[in-house]
Order: sequence, then structure tokens, then C-alpha cells
Amino acid sequence: MVKQRKYVVKKYFQGVPKRDDFEVVETELPPITNGEILVKAEWLSVDPYQRAYNTRNPVPYDQFGYQVAVVLESKDPRYPEGSRIVSHRGWCDHSIINANDSSSPMNRIYKLPDLKGLPNSLGIGTVGMPGATAYFGLLELCQPKEGETVVVTGAAGAVGSIVGQIAKIKGCKVIGFAGSDDKIEWLEKELGFDKAFNYKTVDIVKALKEAAPQGVDCYFDNVGGEISSSIISLMNTYGRVAVCGSISAYNDATWPKATILQPSLVFKELKVEGFLVPRWISRWGEAFADLVKWSKSGQLKSREHVTEGFDNVYDAFIGMLAGDNTGKAVVKV
Amino acid sequence: MVKQRKYVVKKYFQGVPKRDDFEVVETELPPITNGEILVKAEWLSVDPYQRAYNTRNPVPYDQFGYQVAVVLESKDPRYPEGSRIVSHRGWCDHSIINANDSSSPMNRIYKLPDLKGLPNSLGIGTVGMPGATAYFGLLELCQPKEGETVVVTGAAGAVGSIVGQIAKIKGCKVIGFAGSDDKIEWLEKELGFDKAFNYKTVDIVKALKEAAPQGVDCYFDNVGGEISSSIISLMNTYGRVAVCGSISAYNDATWPKATILQPSLVFKELKVEGFLVPRWISRWGEAFADLVKWSKSGQLKSREHVTEGFDNVYDAFIGMLAGDNTGKAVVKV
Repeated sequence: MVKQRKYVVKKYFQGVPKRDDFEVVETELPPITNGEILVKAEWLSVDPYQRAYNTRNPVPYDQFGYQVAVVLESKDPRYPEGSRIVSHRGWCDHSIINANDSSSPMNRIYKLPDLKGLPNSLGIGTVGMPGATAYFGLLELCQPKEGETVVVTGAAGAVGSIVGQIAKIKGCKVIGFAGSDDKIEWLEKELGFDKAFNYKTVDIVKALKEAAPQGVDCYFDNVGGEISSSIISLMNTYGRVAVCGSISAYNDATWPKATILQPSLVFKELKVEGFLVPRWISRWGEAFADLVKWSKSGQLKSREHVTEGFDNVYDAFIGMLAGDNTGKAVVKV
Repeated sequence: MVKQRKYVVKKYFQGVPKRDDFEVVETELPPITNGEILVKAEWLSVDPYQRAYNTRNPVPYDQFGYQVAVVLESKDPRYPEGSRIVSHRGWCDHSIINANDSSSPMNRIYKLPDLKGLPNSLGIGTVGMPGATAYFGLLELCQPKEGETVVVTGAAGAVGSIVGQIAKIKGCKVIGFAGSDDKIEWLEKELGFDKAFNYKTVDIVKALKEAAPQGVDCYFDNVGGEISSSIISLMNTYGRVAVCGSISAYNDATWPKATILQPSLVFKELKVEGFLVPRWISRWGEAFADLVKWSKSGQLKSREHVTEGFDNVYDAFIGMLAGDNTGKAVVKV
């Protein structure tokens, strides 16, 4: 018999999620039957959207969140014992999955992409949902052209750090905003951002006017709020904004107010588009192939903020929401 | 000798434009030379953008604003004496124009479209810039499909009233917001809006949830501000917003704050696009042909709020900014 442990949300969050909003539930798993596989999680993902969906769009956490898992037992020949998969089974150590059962999107799994020697944990990071988010959000919605100026907020996070590097690969000038001087140093010195700012200590408009006197063509928005209003006010005609998240507001009970965007949108004829990356699910393979290629060639660097142990998922989650991570926050089970 | 009278802005506006921010300047016009025409304005347009461009994007008023004019003398065979043109010569009674001189976009003129017996004043309204604005903003950016729900603010204005009627022609359910009970009655009883609300006296979210329990697919935003945040929060996945203006904020010294849009944009994957109608200048003829056709067939009704006399342009402008007009605000010279 295999025991399953999973985090279950007992209470929907108010403000910063509390430790006792969660409960770890233990279940004995039955033997697998035909078509099923038994998997053991090796890497769990903690991501900002997991905060956002709770409260306003309640989703039980035990079926929500990406993980890299190894197949322990298999009655599905497509996923043999010892192979690795990426699933959406959340903060759960062992699971039984029937990939043929399409009654829930939570049964959707895919084989860990061929990482060509890169660490498996990238399957929930650079070569996973966050990488696909950066790739499609930037390339499909912002459509950056060589020589254009791209701004990204949450620049030192899992998605933002990839966005900036892809924009550099595409020949753009890249400016990032992040929340600590260490992050700024990492962005400028290691990732090759043209300029990065600590949004907590600079005057956003002044800093950006100096760094981008030619204006901003593309903005990848991870944070929402006033900083986004400021950046959008400095955009050039026909500028494009991809809205990926609003982490600045996720712990608020009601969405906050910020300077309205409409005048900039009209007079600069801007396009602002929000997205969820499953929109391009049929094309994730394209993104992964490029992301692996760039990672192997050294053009794309990944950093992980690793929390050890299934018991520490809560701390990893809260730390990520507070911005403790540089790069992708993951939990090693 | 022909005298020209034109309104010139002496001081850039602060708050509501004041009468003595303007001066009427008289000039003697010289005889026309080869390639020129002398025109006399018959209908002048007062539009919200004329407030917006001032202060933040100063443009002298004597070269800003549409008019329908009759050709008094012509040394350009394309525009014979007695024919009518639409120009961008602003609040000016007589002008000399050289349509071959492309050094300023203000010399760009076109023949009054064939209105098939409709009043000439429509050349600055339904079959002019406001009509093209409604047509392309709605059809190109919102792309409403039959059966979808379209919301428009500033619904009783020059643009909004056309937007709602085009949406009806396209088979949509149409909900409008305007600023008086008389306007609401006009929208529902005469223009065939499915529902209209006085935004000053209703709870926007409650009213819209009741009127559109199926959610909002398209939103044509003329006003910006908190009402737009409320409407956008009720949109369906892949909803489209065309941002045409922000009249709610034009008299403010700094743009106001309103509830942030980003969470709705992300979780509903909305697209919000601002525009200026010259983007489609090469296609205005398409719009005009449809707008004339629909007007002749009775599917599209136009109402005008007419101010008489060149001396009353200021009052017409201020009245329009305050929402006194139902339909298009025009000045009969």
C-alpha cells in the first residue's frame, strides 16, 4: 500500500494565506488498475496564480499545481515505470492518474520534455508552464521586433526572468523591475538585462524615462497596480502589453485602485491583452524546443529557489508570494 | 476681401475650459491662387477629443476640428464652386485650403460623401469622423458576433449612439449607459437598445448583472474611470474592449484612479485596445457607404444637438463636455 499525502485548503484565504488555512491529508492509495499509473512527485511548483485562484475562484489545491513525477508503477504502456511525467496534481506526493480519463483537465499529463541533460526541475520552470508563459505571452502578444524596447515587471521571477532573456535573444533592449538590489544585480550582471531597477526605491517614471528615452514598445506585466500605470503611460504608439498576472493585488480582499490606463490606451493606440497560457497548450512543444535549445547554448539562464521537503510547501508558497525567490520557486520532495 | 474669423486658444485649459481661454481672431484673407479653394464653413463639430488634446497634447484650435464647408471660389478643379467638402480646419468660418499641400495633415480634405438626401450636417456626425469611429472601433476591435452582448458607455453621444445601433444591426444584445433619464428613454424607445441605464443613479454592477446575466462579450469604452472597471469585471472569457475615449477624466489635471483592470484581463483573457480613427483613414469610405445605407433604410437613426451661430461655439463645446447633448453636438454657422 502506498500512502498519499496532499495539501488541502480548509479555508479560503483572507490576506496572506495562513499555515492553518491548509491541512495535510493522508490517504491509502488502492492498487492501480488498467490504464492507470502510480507516480511519485519529485518537484512541486509554487506559483503566484495559486494565490489568485483561491478566494475569488476557489479551486481545491490538491488538484492544482504542476509537478514533475517519476512513474513508480504503470498499467499504461505510454508511461513506463521509471519514466517521468509532468502533471497538474498539485501539492501531493503520490498520485494515481488515468491519462485516458478526460473527465477532468487535472488528469492531463505529458512526458517530461527531452531536457538534453538539463535538470528535471526545469520541467516545472523554464521548460514548463512558466517558460511557456514567458514565451507565448511575449512572442505572441507583445510581438517584439529587433531594436524595440521591452519592459518587464516581476523581472527576477520565474516568468519575468525568462521574458527578459527571450527579448534579448530577439534583439530588443530590455529593462526590468524587481524588488531587491540583489535581484537587480543578477538581472544586469548575469542575465544581460540592459537595465534593471528596484521598484521599491526608485521613481518609476523618472527611472524609465532615463533608461528608455525612446519610449517603451512592449510591456510584459506580471504585477498590475500603479507601477503598470506608470510604465504604460510611457509607451510608444501601437505599443503592446501582455498581462500575465497581478501579483501586487493577490493578497488584497478587493482589487486596489491605480491611475486609469484608458487615456494612454487611446492616445497611443495601445493594445493590452491578458492571457492564461493553456490557450497555447497545443503549441507548448514548440516553446519547449526553443527553451531547451537556448538553455543548452547558454543564451538562457535559469535559477531556482529550492525549498527542501514536502512539509515545507507552505513556507515555499508564502516566501514566493513575498518575493523571497530569485528565479523559479520549487519544492524538492 | 473675405474676412476669416477663427477661435484661437490663448491659454491651455485647466479644469473646465473657460470662455476667456479663447479669443476670436479676425483676419483678411488674400485672393486665392492656383490650386487653392476658398471655403465657407456651414457646420462645425465640437467633440470630446478637442478637450483631451489640449493641456496634455497642445494643438492650436484654429487647425483642429472637423467642418462641413461649401466651396465659394475654386482654383482646384476637383472641388468646384458650390461643392461641399469636409475639412479639418476647426472653428473657423472662412478658410483658404490648398489640398495639394501635404505639409500639414490639416490640409487634408475630402468631398462630402454622397448622402443621398440626408442632411449635410451628418458629414461631421454619422457619416463623418464620429461614424467612422463607431464603425471601425466596434467592428474591427470588438468584432461582435451575432448573439453576443455589447455594452457601450457614453451611449447617447455622437459615437455611442451609433455603436449601439450598429451592434443591433449585427444581431447583438445591446446595453447602454448614459447620463440622464431622457437619454435612457431615447436609447430604449427610439434606438432599440435592449436596455439602457442612467449611470448616475444605478449600481453599475448590479444593473449589468441583471441585464446581462450571460456576461459581456464586447465593451465600447467612451468614458474610462470606475464605470469601465466595473463593466470589464463582468466580461466573458476572450471579451474585447475598444477604448475610444475617457471623457470622465478630460477635465482633470491628473488622470484619476480606478479599480485595476489587470486581474480581469488575465483571468478572462480579455483584449483591450485603444484607437484613434485616422488609423483606418483609407477605409473611411467603406464605413460611410454602410452608414448612409443604414440611415436611408431607417436602421440607423441620427439625432443632432444643434447650436446656432459661430459666436456660440464655446457654449456648444462646454455643453457637450457636460453631457447636455443627446446625439451629435454640432454648430450651425
